[in-house]
Amino acid sequence: MINIERLHQNVTTWLKTSRQRVLALMNDPLTVATKSNRNDLVTNVDRTNQQFLIGQIQAAYPDARIEGEEGKDQKTKSLDGLVFFVDPIDGTMNFVKEHNYFAIMIGVYVDGKPVYGAIMDVMHDTIIAGGHGFAMRANDTRLPALADEPLAAGLIGLNGPMHAHNRLAVADIGMASSGVRMIGSAGMTFADIAQGALIGYISYLQPWDVAAALAILGHAGVIFSRPDGSQLDLLTPGIVVAATPQAHQTIMTMMNDAATN
Amino acid sequence: MINIERLHQNVTTWLKTSRQRVLALMNDPLTVATKSNRNDLVTNVDRTNQQFLIGQIQAAYPDARIEGEEGKDQKTKSLDGLVFFVDPIDGTMNFVKEHNYFAIMIGVYVDGKPVYGAIMDVMHDTIIAGGHGFAMRANDTRLPALADEPLAAGLIGLNGPMHAHNRLAVADIGMASSGVRMIGSAGMTFADIAQGALIGYISYLQPWDVAAALAILGHAGVIFSRPDGSQLDLLTPGIVVAATPQAHQTIMTMMNDAATN
Repeated sequence: MINIERLHQNVTTWLKTSRQRVLALMNDPLTVATKSNRNDLVTNVDRTNQQFLIGQIQAAYPDARIEGEEGKDQKTKSLDGLVFFVDPIDGTMNFVKEHNYFAIMIGVYVDGKPVYGAIMDVMHDTIIAGGHGFAMRANDTRLPALADEPLAAGLIGLNGPMHAHNRLAVADIGMASSGVRMIGSAGMTFADIAQGALIGYISYLQPWDVAAALAILGHAGVIFSRPDGSQLDLLTPGIVVAATPQAHQTIMTMMNDAATN
Repeated sequence: MINIERLHQNVTTWLKTSRQRVLALMNDPLTVATKSNRNDLVTNVDRTNQQFLIGQIQAAYPDARIEGEEGKDQKTKSLDGLVFFVDPIDGTMNFVKEHNYFAIMIGVYVDGKPVYGAIMDVMHDTIIAGGHGFAMRANDTRLPALADEPLAAGLIGLNGPMHAHNRLAVADIGMASSGVRMIGSAGMTFADIAQGALIGYISYLQPWDVAAALAILGHAGVIFSRPDGSQLDLLTPGIVVAATPQAHQTIMTMMNDAATN
């Protein structure tokens, strides 16, 4: 079994160095390209930062497989053994337009089981980390246990197009909550859940968008599922429902009612 | 005519003191009550802070009339003379749930004309200020001129229920942008526009939600109107469209098409 304290020290060191590199590059003009659509961006910083993080992981864990957002060469079809999911810049649109509210994420899995995750809020210099037997923390401060609030009592992060089209009752779910937030970064949204600011998040996510959060929040009582209640599969993208237990149950009921009516 | 440099010094002093008081009170249990609906909150801190700010304004500007969010006694039906609009905590839901992303706002008008505004982002200790002949700044740093980006190239803040119901084509406007953000505080959204992170905002706002921003951003090239293109009236609540000129024009066309189809 991997040593999680040691892993956390390594990841923390990589993320702090990575952050300094990103901040330095942010002052130069960015090279921005589109991927799947006009709002799916990649910059030179995403690519450079992924290369840096992959280099660090390979040096420390030569047997690990690495799933990164940028570039197809590392894609795996299996989660056997030690796997690192890397999102070098999560919230690239925010990074480009706002120079704020973006994250660097690393999620670590052993034989498909979430072991450890870290989400770095770059501009606020905060690493949210947690995992199996490793209590959730913001930098060196232990985070309080998450309250199991009902949907009506909490703020929820929602995907914009799903909300606009009430897909899977997502707009109704928003109206049933205390309020909808759209932050533009899965990592920043999950970091808000870890800190008790939001009680859930519904969005279409790639494996590297959710891997770190599943490891951190899944061990802190947050329920992750697909809209039909089935478990996530970190080899394929799809809609993710992450919420504290009471809210998750209400969301499942509302989604099921919407699907069957 | 009021001395704006002196006004800015006064407001800055009040906001800094106000911030310290809010931070101190935030550590105690909040008294939370609902107003117009279950998600329209007021806390003891909103009320205490409004009293504090009104006291400061009255001491320095004894002839001013004051329009505050909390309490009906100060409501005016005219904008003649010197009027201060005060929002003691903007984004009360965020204040309660997140302890982050809320603002304190002061907007100053003379005979109905916007003279000066200040938005304090409490948790990030930043005052965005600007006005007539008073360049937009974040604390002591002058902010760059706002780029006149088209709607397709910018992020836009949108009201949740309007987006959910595509009211006035707001969901379509979101899809035509680079992305939708829902922040939960008018003040924080306008602060993001001032800093070039967002290009616009559409929401239903009370006079004290928009007064500071209209004074700051209206003098920095942002267009403010009602959905039909008419000017804002700071005596009544209503839907506000605030955006950089190109984006505002596109939004007006989309809203007009939606209203006439």
